[in-house]
Amino acid sequence: MIENPQIPRDYLPFWPRLTGSQQELILRQAQLRRIPKDEIVHNGKEDCVGLLLVIEGQLRVFTLSEEGRELTLYRLFPWDMCLFSASCLLKGIDFHVIVQAQQPSLVLHIPPDTYRQLMEESLPVSLYTNELMATHFSDVMWQMDQILNKKMDSRLAALLLEESALAGSDSVSSTHEKLARHLGSAREVVSRLLQYFASEGLIRLGRGSILLLDRPALERLASASLR
Amino acid sequence: MIENPQIPRDYLPFWPRLTGSQQELILRQAQLRRIPKDEIVHNGKEDCVGLLLVIEGQLRVFTLSEEGRELTLYRLFPWDMCLFSASCLLKGIDFHVIVQAQQPSLVLHIPPDTYRQLMEESLPVSLYTNELMATHFSDVMWQMDQILNKKMDSRLAALLLEESALAGSDSVSSTHEKLARHLGSAREVVSRLLQYFASEGLIRLGRGSILLLDRPALERLASASLR
Repeated sequence: MIENPQIPRDYLPFWPRLTGSQQELILRQAQLRRIPKDEIVHNGKEDCVGLLLVIEGQLRVFTLSEEGRELTLYRLFPWDMCLFSASCLLKGIDFHVIVQAQQPSLVLHIPPDTYRQLMEESLPVSLYTNELMATHFSDVMWQMDQILNKKMDSRLAALLLEESALAGSDSVSSTHEKLARHLGSAREVVSRLLQYFASEGLIRLGRGSILLLDRPALERLASASLR
Repeated sequence: MIENPQIPRDYLPFWPRLTGSQQELILRQAQLRRIPKDEIVHNGKEDCVGLLLVIEGQLRVFTLSEEGRELTLYRLFPWDMCLFSASCLLKGIDFHVIVQAQQPSLVLHIPPDTYRQLMEESLPVSLYTNELMATHFSDVMWQMDQILNKKMDSRLAALLLEESALAGSDSVSSTHEKLARHLGSAREVVSRLLQYFASEGLIRLGRGSILLLDRPALERLASASLR
């Protein structure tokens, strides 16, 4: 915890529409927190963390199947707000997600009681919560569409392109295990597909990294709906 | 349209927390509508119908893949409110759902402009919208879990048990085509599984109906996570 934080008000879209005492409440209660890479910041509905606003870094929101398979639902970047770390406060939410730092991150933490009070008092905060939930709902619907309508090769090609764009490089640093977890699949399935991609000249496999060789071919594959 | 409807206020949980003029707005604008079986009442985000509150009957909310495959997301029964028929008014929603009457239905229709005004003015309406969205989000997450973690035989067994519970009978009136649509699958896949279920003595296949013979075995199958 950093004492007396400079609260980055610009990051709160509802800030100008709050009353003076609501603004004071946030200034008094919110705190900046540094999160090391790989730390799990929220684990399931009972874990009542509160709202997290990403200032720097990246958070990943995923679900876990009974057999321990992960599926990435969406990622949060600077300016994004993590709603489901406050899911204990959201009536009607009945599922568990896990939030993990993908990179060392700096977040603004608004405690659950503070957020609850703001929701119960402020129409702008409630409307913004609505909008956030709708956005995440849309992300999940997109994922569902991917799973239902794309074969794994399309999804893997799309993931490689996404990771490459995030890294700003043709080289993707990731293990087969990690890629499989993103896709909710098994490592063996992903390894087999990567070897197939390599044999077709789309990628080159290195130690803990994958080099994208034929981006147009990967893009064609990613956009194909083949099932 | 039925003129001068008796608005069933009990069905609107936020009713007692509205102002007098907001209540008058609803009494003036809302209307009861009868919907014949199979009628599509909402088709995609651009179709701005407004809120629909189910008084009698049943609505089904589903998505359509590029190849025209349907997947049932959830169903709405009396007292449920259909939020996504008003998705044009929800910032952040970026996906298309279709709403169809599964049975002859009676709904209370609140036009989009009326709903927009209520959302912008009333914290109770905004909070209720939030709760509705969270509930539907949970339904969709449950579906996603089913798809990711259950084999088709488990999902089909679960669907047969659900249809039987809805019908209040051991006999399910449905075509293989319809069951496949509910599951986002192909008719051939479902037909093959039904024949397998029949050969195992779990069901008996009739003309346009399926008789559930071994409910405990179907329940074991439905709860198995086998992938």
